[in-house]
Amino acid sequence: MTTYRSIEWRGDSIRLLDQRRLPHVTEYLDFTDYRALADAIQAMVVRGAPAIGAAAAYGLALTAAQSQAQDVAALSGELVGAAAVLRAARPTAVNLAWAVDRMLRCSVEPDIAGVDALREAMLDEANAIAAEDVRTNRQIGLNAMELVPQGATIIHHCNTGSLATVDYGTALGVIRTAHEQGKQVHAYLDETRPRLQGAALSAWELIQLGVPHTVIVDGASGHIMRTRGVDLCVVGCDRVAANGDTANKIGTYNLALVAHAHGVPFYVAAPTSTIDLATPTGDDIAIEERGPEEVTTIGGVQVTPAGADVANPAFDVTPAAYITAVITEMGIARPPYGESLRRMVELAEEERAV
Amino acid sequence: MTTYRSIEWRGDSIRLLDQRRLPHVTEYLDFTDYRALADAIQAMVVRGAPAIGAAAAYGLALTAAQSQAQDVAALSGELVGAAAVLRAARPTAVNLAWAVDRMLRCSVEPDIAGVDALREAMLDEANAIAAEDVRTNRQIGLNAMELVPQGATIIHHCNTGSLATVDYGTALGVIRTAHEQGKQVHAYLDETRPRLQGAALSAWELIQLGVPHTVIVDGASGHIMRTRGVDLCVVGCDRVAANGDTANKIGTYNLALVAHAHGVPFYVAAPTSTIDLATPTGDDIAIEERGPEEVTTIGGVQVTPAGADVANPAFDVTPAAYITAVITEMGIARPPYGESLRRMVELAEEERAV
Repeated sequence: MTTYRSIEWRGDSIRLLDQRRLPHVTEYLDFTDYRALADAIQAMVVRGAPAIGAAAAYGLALTAAQSQAQDVAALSGELVGAAAVLRAARPTAVNLAWAVDRMLRCSVEPDIAGVDALREAMLDEANAIAAEDVRTNRQIGLNAMELVPQGATIIHHCNTGSLATVDYGTALGVIRTAHEQGKQVHAYLDETRPRLQGAALSAWELIQLGVPHTVIVDGASGHIMRTRGVDLCVVGCDRVAANGDTANKIGTYNLALVAHAHGVPFYVAAPTSTIDLATPTGDDIAIEERGPEEVTTIGGVQVTPAGADVANPAFDVTPAAYITAVITEMGIARPPYGESLRRMVELAEEERAV
Repeated sequence: MTTYRSIEWRGDSIRLLDQRRLPHVTEYLDFTDYRALADAIQAMVVRGAPAIGAAAAYGLALTAAQSQAQDVAALSGELVGAAAVLRAARPTAVNLAWAVDRMLRCSVEPDIAGVDALREAMLDEANAIAAEDVRTNRQIGLNAMELVPQGATIIHHCNTGSLATVDYGTALGVIRTAHEQGKQVHAYLDETRPRLQGAALSAWELIQLGVPHTVIVDGASGHIMRTRGVDLCVVGCDRVAANGDTANKIGTYNLALVAHAHGVPFYVAAPTSTIDLATPTGDDIAIEERGPEEVTTIGGVQVTPAGADVANPAFDVTPAAYITAVITEMGIARPPYGESLRRMVELAEEERAV
């Protein structure tokens, strides 16, 4: 649907658009080894919960394709090893673990007859994960339309577009769908420090899509709500706990609190693959702490004095109480989330079983 | 009290520490003309509400010192012209207008006998404004001590230290006083996009003072409150309206809302010169919109794609309802602010009249 692809399977390699260099340089990197791919996920060559899930799935397909193993047991062992490395690349987004687990479940299906069949099954499953992601995102956008009024002003945090997914996007996909439906929306984009995914990536995507937008610093959202009026906020997520608590890019929680104080609805766009029923609450989600250089330098320019102490939590948790609804591909989940999120996951599993 | 001075009167010029180049380069610039000084205030060579007030006062003293006027009427006319230029340099901080008005009031005092006496009166008044600022800041720090518990964790926004004032600082002065009194405080410093005064200037000051601190991105304050515990927030201000609504650096309002949601006290450190009884509410405060390049580039590095739209409000207004107390040099003002702020201003005027 877009002219760029965050992830592309190339038969003997996985091609990633290097998101660290956007919006100024459009460069693709090819990976022929799952370890290098895991490093690229850690370094955020590819980022966004759905995108890193799909990338890891292709990483296992690549491992299978390249393996010299002579029997299914040996190849399965290699896959388990690669899965552990890929899963450990980043801790917070559950899609990574979800995609790896789904690939491993597929790898042990009893009707797989030999190593070639297992190789084929791995590629088929990775392709299925990627294709489902795009369908899922389009459906999230459509499902959200009842929540987006004509002419809506929307605040968005981080990047959740084509770049953060296999294609189309989740929260940015909601804005995109509204734009495509002629709703004449205007998006305020939190720049999203420290890595500036909003300023660099979301603005880049919305320019190409022709969606009216305004980049603001993260601290300006309250001022925008108070002085210009905002109809809704929509964000993506890295993991939704069973009770609705949601981990997402640092700054999401502040935005949710600001929205709450203004009575502005706060929506989370979540593929059901991001809902983790095995995680009871947000307190059970590991929050990745990344290196201080993301805060102390910007584009190679040092901004802090030598000797400054820095904390750099990459994510935060927004308690369910501040989330108006969770928009999934199976429908809109509302409080109490303990029930509604479980229902969405069940519906997705039923559909996949058909 | 510190080894650097934000503003220094040099007899035939005004020396400013160029805060745009900190923390990496310590460079002083000399100004011999009020127009160039007004440009420097606009460009934020010097910034911080009390500091730009004192700088403008010295700008009028400089105008008087350099004037070729032969009589008081001619010199008074020049001062009125220079005052208009200096006052227009930045719209939001009331200290600029306050200091300029105070200088003009002084210039028309009936006992000024001739041009030399007027020149002397202008320098005396500028020196008085500068000296009062330092005394005021120290007293704000002392008055705040009843609000700062032993071992307090404090979030601070922007820079309100020696650099933002003539010396010592307002909100950062509160942290400094607590540190000097052995309270073992720890300060989380909002980096304060777009101009990063927290990351660049506050961190620089606290390193020199030996105050334990941690720089965070502006979006992380909620996460820090939720996961690490915070005892209070303290910020400076550019203008406090008669009802307590407070204009301060963009991002202050978000921090206040986040603090409110966590039940964390939110304090504004305000010299009475920053309280503007002539401004009824925050809606009556002009909010400066600065150029987009502050958002689109950082240290000369472009962060947004070409064609991105940007908004850059330099300040926001925090409604009085979210402010626990206003700490002035005359005491602590609490709600209802309509009464308590007026009382603080009256006390300051009485003291000045003694």
